[in-house]
Amino acid sequence: MYAVDDEIRCIAADLVAQLQECGYTFATAESCTGGSVAAAVTSVAGCSSVMLGGVVAYNNSVKSRVLGVDEALLASHGAVSEPVVRQMVNGVATLLGADCAVATSGIAGPSGGTAEKPVGTVWLAAKAGAVVKTKLLETGIGEREYNIKRSVKEVISLLQDVIEDSKER
Amino acid sequence: MYAVDDEIRCIAADLVAQLQECGYTFATAESCTGGSVAAAVTSVAGCSSVMLGGVVAYNNSVKSRVLGVDEALLASHGAVSEPVVRQMVNGVATLLGADCAVATSGIAGPSGGTAEKPVGTVWLAAKAGAVVKTKLLETGIGEREYNIKRSVKEVISLLQDVIEDSKER
Repeated sequence: MYAVDDEIRCIAADLVAQLQECGYTFATAESCTGGSVAAAVTSVAGCSSVMLGGVVAYNNSVKSRVLGVDEALLASHGAVSEPVVRQMVNGVATLLGADCAVATSGIAGPSGGTAEKPVGTVWLAAKAGAVVKTKLLETGIGEREYNIKRSVKEVISLLQDVIEDSKER
Repeated sequence: MYAVDDEIRCIAADLVAQLQECGYTFATAESCTGGSVAAAVTSVAGCSSVMLGGVVAYNNSVKSRVLGVDEALLASHGAVSEPVVRQMVNGVATLLGADCAVATSGIAGPSGGTAEKPVGTVWLAAKAGAVVKTKLLETGIGEREYNIKRSVKEVISLLQDVIEDSKER
């Protein structure tokens, strides 16, 4: 058994092929997924033609210091919010000079949930060129590993949609 | 099956417990492991008391732009070298304000090896406070996933040793 599971690696391999076809570079800004998206993409042999790298912004200080997320926004909306993942995805694309990027921020659990944002609440963002899409994931499941893996799959899928949309413009 | 395998998660849980015991915060600077160390640590419930985040510096531009690795050093020694992982580990600890950090840079394969630095050549660095230790890993194995997983295990073990040493001072 390896550091990245087979299902995730297959999904990541599809993304790498799509990025290569478009000539797009890629970067990640991960909070709740903690590096799992980057790990999935770098598990694909030959990813170096597209993969630049990423920032694991687990603590809010990293979101603001490194990715440039507005501290007032973090305070008013919370880290798990649409405007924060939007700033994360734009921040990492600018920092690394990437064409495409993804961002994740959520409550993976098992603790840390609230009535308003229960465990399994995850905001996702994906960017290709100037197009950014965001998505709210509400798994309703309290298991940390499930929420992380689900978030990885969903954010890669979201980016694949955004790339397709960007080609149609 | 989940994003991080059980063996790696157990090792990461040991590290998180050790960091919590010492009151140390943690950051990662990953090239060849591509976020797998950060993903392993964030897979541990309760890691937020120690885990700040990290930088996946897969492309050399990220090593220099984000982590402050000297471009001349990258050119003269190559990314897979002792002085580069030393600058990576110090760079991420400064950037994120972390007490402890790890860095990885290697040739995971299956291609990219040279006579001097064959596939499976990986430089690792670990830092606790002012103490930095580096280690050269030469797996002699051409399989990408093996080299990534082995690097994750070895660099966590290296940090655990450095933390123990730092306590004896």
